[in-house]
Amino acid sequence: MEKVCFGIDVGGTTVKIGLFTADDAKLVDSFEIPTRKEDEGSHILPDICESIEAKLVEKKITRDNLIGVGIGIPGPITKDGTVLNCVNLGWGMFNVEEKLSQMLGGVKVKAGNDANVAALGETWQGGGRGFEDLVLVTLGTGVGGGVIIGGKIVTGSNGAAGEIGHIPAVYDENAEICGCGKKGCLETVGSATGIVRETKKLLAKSSEDSTLRSLEEITCKDIFDAAKEGDKIASEEVDQLSYYLGNAIAGIAAVTNPQVIVIGGGVSKAGKFLLDKIEDNFSNNAFHATKNAKFALATLGNDAGMYGAAALIIA
Amino acid sequence: MEKVCFGIDVGGTTVKIGLFTADDAKLVDSFEIPTRKEDEGSHILPDICESIEAKLVEKKITRDNLIGVGIGIPGPITKDGTVLNCVNLGWGMFNVEEKLSQMLGGVKVKAGNDANVAALGETWQGGGRGFEDLVLVTLGTGVGGGVIIGGKIVTGSNGAAGEIGHIPAVYDENAEICGCGKKGCLETVGSATGIVRETKKLLAKSSEDSTLRSLEEITCKDIFDAAKEGDKIASEEVDQLSYYLGNAIAGIAAVTNPQVIVIGGGVSKAGKFLLDKIEDNFSNNAFHATKNAKFALATLGNDAGMYGAAALIIA
Repeated sequence: MEKVCFGIDVGGTTVKIGLFTADDAKLVDSFEIPTRKEDEGSHILPDICESIEAKLVEKKITRDNLIGVGIGIPGPITKDGTVLNCVNLGWGMFNVEEKLSQMLGGVKVKAGNDANVAALGETWQGGGRGFEDLVLVTLGTGVGGGVIIGGKIVTGSNGAAGEIGHIPAVYDENAEICGCGKKGCLETVGSATGIVRETKKLLAKSSEDSTLRSLEEITCKDIFDAAKEGDKIASEEVDQLSYYLGNAIAGIAAVTNPQVIVIGGGVSKAGKFLLDKIEDNFSNNAFHATKNAKFALATLGNDAGMYGAAALIIA
Repeated sequence: MEKVCFGIDVGGTTVKIGLFTADDAKLVDSFEIPTRKEDEGSHILPDICESIEAKLVEKKITRDNLIGVGIGIPGPITKDGTVLNCVNLGWGMFNVEEKLSQMLGGVKVKAGNDANVAALGETWQGGGRGFEDLVLVTLGTGVGGGVIIGGKIVTGSNGAAGEIGHIPAVYDENAEICGCGKKGCLETVGSATGIVRETKKLLAKSSEDSTLRSLEEITCKDIFDAAKEGDKIASEEVDQLSYYLGNAIAGIAAVTNPQVIVIGGGVSKAGKFLLDKIEDNFSNNAFHATKNAKFALATLGNDAGMYGAAALIIA
């Protein structure tokens, strides 16, 4: 019988669970369960175990064919699998690898931070496939990411490596305060929220015509659509965004010199239009020996976490 | 008989060669030979071999007690030991590990970029001893450094990881052009040359009294000495320098989340006075989960390269 593993991505609202074949590394089934955060998140792991057990029964997979479970957690986690106060789930500090393994009768469990695990997923079977030194930059509600070196996640001493959204990026006096409390983090200009806010600032500062002015609510998509049509304000915002991202990525490249930079998250739906502009700014600001890094779009979308979690076991 | 290895640091002017005992990792002898760059640097490896052979004879060490040779090269070098056009030595592209090993009768040879190797040396027996996730920032004629993760050098895809001097750092219009051709690299403000230039700009811009005004030639040491005495212009420069360094290091920490930041190079002779100011600026700008990184001064000075090269073999 074929060997399998599960790749699990624990989010604040739902837990995504993927069943992968171990030999050919294919996702053969996936499903979601709600993330029950009540009672300090104490139901989350039991719920996961229950649905794994049920899936094994449903698929007639015997226990000795389950080679392991990988799991991504939305918070800092150390190299040995210790979660350090995951506020998103209501969890305190404990070793999630040991605990989940025990609950599953001793099966191998590997855990990682969700953004880092997503980076591993994109390296394994996504936009960074074929490379082993990668940086993922996720532009979503916030800005996150992960650093992969030699095909392995860089975890950092407190599980905080790859916190790309918190690179100091904006140095002028009007820099915004980030959700983390610092001023001028990359996230303040690179997240969807930041992009909309910066665009509104540009609209307020200028009397230039813009199709954006007629909209009651401006979304990130509106801004990219307008920029693609040549709208001046929208184009100015996309240029500014690409400048900050290109610069920050040039800084990252001077530190780890990756082969490939993968851009993911909701904002990356702007596609090659945005990717090319980021790459241009990167090229203008990157040290020559790091310049040949390739730029690619993430391809796994919301499944990157499941893939990466499975990669912790079978890649 | 005791096992030994050599740690070699190839500089643009001299080659430093250290003999280390393998079991207790002690530097038992060291010497220098000139770096003969003529004839496309073709004498450098033969000169090294000759002096190694002579040292083995002098110390009555038999060939089978030599377990390896580590070597640091002042240029980019890939993971497999391939030098990529080392202009400092006149070298083209070749595998220095294979070539030197062949010349030494098959002994194990490991090579690395000199700055990265120095970072490994400081991790092994220097200011970062006891840690395995480290960033070395070297403030000298230029700004260099190295990144160590899990006790191993991060090489990068082109051997250009740890090129910390070329992180974009100065964003205002008056940013200086770096030796690498880019504008506003950390090196333009963080190197000894940059520090002196920035101080002269501050002196020209202000009419404030300063002991520096009476000096015919201002050195970095003069600036730190004056700042320690409370000189306003010198203090302003040290504050500005620490701001740029603290910010850049905060960015590095958001990428690799190190346990310790080691500051080395000639400028670091300013000691704890400078270290504390850099650390303050780091604390103000670093993401909370990366903030507990320790700051330490490099302790191996010009020997860091020899130590790190030996560490490639015996650490």
